[in-house]
Amino acid sequence: MKDGTAEMYKAGVRTKRPFVSPEQLFELADRFPTPFYLYDEAGMRSRAQALQEAFGWNEGFKEYFAVKALPNPAVISLLAEMGCGCDCANEVELALAEACGVTGDDIVLSSNDTRDADFAAAAKAGALINLDALELVDDCERALEGRLPEEMMLRINPGGVFGSAGAAHFIGEPGNSKFGMTEDQAVKAAQQLTGHGVRKIDVHALLASNAQGQGYYPALARLLFSTAMRIHEETGAAVSRVDLSGGVGIAYDPRASSPNIREIGQGVRQAFEEILMPAGLGDVRLMCELGRWMTGPCGVLVTRVLHEKRTYRDYLGVDACAANLMRPAIYGAYHHITVMGQPGREHVWNSPATRRYSVVGGLCENSDQFASDRMLPEAKVGDLLLIQDAGAHGHAMGYNYNGRLRSAEVLLHADGSCELIRRAETAADYFATLDVTRWWPRLKPQLP
Amino acid sequence: MKDGTAEMYKAGVRTKRPFVSPEQLFELADRFPTPFYLYDEAGMRSRAQALQEAFGWNEGFKEYFAVKALPNPAVISLLAEMGCGCDCANEVELALAEACGVTGDDIVLSSNDTRDADFAAAAKAGALINLDALELVDDCERALEGRLPEEMMLRINPGGVFGSAGAAHFIGEPGNSKFGMTEDQAVKAAQQLTGHGVRKIDVHALLASNAQGQGYYPALARLLFSTAMRIHEETGAAVSRVDLSGGVGIAYDPRASSPNIREIGQGVRQAFEEILMPAGLGDVRLMCELGRWMTGPCGVLVTRVLHEKRTYRDYLGVDACAANLMRPAIYGAYHHITVMGQPGREHVWNSPATRRYSVVGGLCENSDQFASDRMLPEAKVGDLLLIQDAGAHGHAMGYNYNGRLRSAEVLLHADGSCELIRRAETAADYFATLDVTRWWPRLKPQLP
Repeated sequence: MKDGTAEMYKAGVRTKRPFVSPEQLFELADRFPTPFYLYDEAGMRSRAQALQEAFGWNEGFKEYFAVKALPNPAVISLLAEMGCGCDCANEVELALAEACGVTGDDIVLSSNDTRDADFAAAAKAGALINLDALELVDDCERALEGRLPEEMMLRINPGGVFGSAGAAHFIGEPGNSKFGMTEDQAVKAAQQLTGHGVRKIDVHALLASNAQGQGYYPALARLLFSTAMRIHEETGAAVSRVDLSGGVGIAYDPRASSPNIREIGQGVRQAFEEILMPAGLGDVRLMCELGRWMTGPCGVLVTRVLHEKRTYRDYLGVDACAANLMRPAIYGAYHHITVMGQPGREHVWNSPATRRYSVVGGLCENSDQFASDRMLPEAKVGDLLLIQDAGAHGHAMGYNYNGRLRSAEVLLHADGSCELIRRAETAADYFATLDVTRWWPRLKPQLP
Repeated sequence: MKDGTAEMYKAGVRTKRPFVSPEQLFELADRFPTPFYLYDEAGMRSRAQALQEAFGWNEGFKEYFAVKALPNPAVISLLAEMGCGCDCANEVELALAEACGVTGDDIVLSSNDTRDADFAAAAKAGALINLDALELVDDCERALEGRLPEEMMLRINPGGVFGSAGAAHFIGEPGNSKFGMTEDQAVKAAQQLTGHGVRKIDVHALLASNAQGQGYYPALARLLFSTAMRIHEETGAAVSRVDLSGGVGIAYDPRASSPNIREIGQGVRQAFEEILMPAGLGDVRLMCELGRWMTGPCGVLVTRVLHEKRTYRDYLGVDACAANLMRPAIYGAYHHITVMGQPGREHVWNSPATRRYSVVGGLCENSDQFASDRMLPEAKVGDLLLIQDAGAHGHAMGYNYNGRLRSAEVLLHADGSCELIRRAETAADYFATLDVTRWWPRLKPQLP
């Protein structure tokens, strides 16, 4: 039986094959207390390579990993080895990129409502600066004391609704989005910038999120290529790069199929050859800022069943909660759950789903449920569960509500060895920002 | 003109009178960099007193402040001075309560999916333990090595739907909630507990959140009083306390009126006199675990306008974002925004709302908007804004997504002086849990 196929579903087996075997996982859980995040180095490398291959036809193509999806130096470093740069939003993310050896225009600062300190840090790093608004031209110039870089990027927002919910499987509402500037504003911004010595103007847009299917990037490329041409024609600025940003989705549900990155690359190529090449802009380099697509499927949250409870539903209480992974609680997001069992129960992960459970954490919020009324194989107290596709916007969106601590991150290397790439928070971390208060002397000795 | 009245609205003035004057605020913003939380000690004391008075008819009544709403020792300490205890969910929150001098059964451990360590910490502190599930009786006994306390509490879930959306203005769906046990399970749990030497059984339920109007607590009291009587009759256990928990709401919108706590107290009294007194249970002590009602209106997030932007809407970009206050982004929650101006613009806060703005932060998420298309007085870059009613589930729900740092907390004392009761996070805090990794030596010198 192949994973995630209709055949598998017919047999009542409703899972995704995990990147870690039960035996491996039981060993890991002896070494690292649950809950913890586990990441798959081989998977990340293979996705980075697939992306490079899909866009290999474009000389100079580069993925700038959206650091916010998984801001861990181990991940940034291994993606950098695979040729990726970093998409950062502020000085904190810039510091992380630079510590991983990602520097200069291998970094893009893509942010909105940008603070002066972030402009200054980006300029100091030599990063590409992406301006979100016409009004930011003056603010950026002031923040950089009049010394604008020779290449800058403009974030475009075409307004209205982009794409259709039908065949293309993507839809975004740029008109309702706080991001970017109108095309007319972009032309005006380019005129102002070239007037201040900027020579190259790049364009960028993000018009959908977690888009399914293959249509989004090609449609976006057509829009950005035309905008780039208009800016080039009306201002005389050179166009160096076009940034397709993020937005390509992944299949959280095993019954869905993931966007095919090779087909996406070919769709963009067609647009490139139809629009940019005839205009003499065939040397434009493409960029993207994928986060979810790069690492989402390569991370799981490992958690253990603490309690069973039966009231009006059957509950599995686990030791992770929304503080560790917030997406189900705030978006109602689906994350596939695989029951991995415990020593002596190695085979439960691919057995038929015969029980209906709600899988909940211990946060005092009813939304703190990883799954509601979901069919799973029978689980026992002590079983390990994998909450899958948590490799992007997972740990990064953790919080400390209700006194809960964020978990460790562990990287499963391609050779099967493991590395702790972030320790779990302690109570001392939780209370750290109280160290300036008069309660600190009484609090410190109480730390659990 | 009185605040929040129809008359005020007719005049186009759409605000809530802030607890801080513009002059005071301008001074504070010179001392503490924005964004920061500002709390009103006088307001908190006055709410605590109003609550005590509303339930003064019940000897032994006590509010156990829901620590998760605002886990700051300055707030817990001042509420303790007003006679409040603490509602904690785990060992981290227990440590905080104890550091503030709140000990023994002035603490209640109300949690679900409870970990052994949390049971043990609660028992060590002498806290009341609230059991969420019948299945937890055995787990708690094991965690406490067989030594159960002489008084324990049971969390009830009556199932179905509670209340009506009509006159009572509250509605909850206990049947869809992970919390609590059925009444039959509670009787069974009480039997097991008394069999192990527990003498007093208390009851607790939370069946609504942010309930408006006066009906919720009285209706809940009737339900809990009957359950307490049934447990008493069927098991012979003494009933010592009934815990109404939280759920009483506040008016986020100035056009709405807040629940009247005095009327709520009288409604509960009527139920008490009708049900418990004739049953000879007139010495039962009432508890509640209010969080939002206690401190929600007594906190504001102070933020400054960094940028104006006009595309398909008019935007004010501020220096706070969803990382500082998440409720608008994840719940679409309304928080009233008051434009406080800047020196020379002291009077803008109560001037007519003539402009339509979306007020947004710099997080790379379009949901990061404190208000969408809202009428406000005209604002200028540099103006201070108050995001009101952020004194509960505000800072506590902050996170570090997109490299953003959580802000400081400042307490405005009743005498007009101010105290820093939490410092702002630094990049060093953000990166602290990477200190065990091999990237740390390269990261540490990069900290911005």
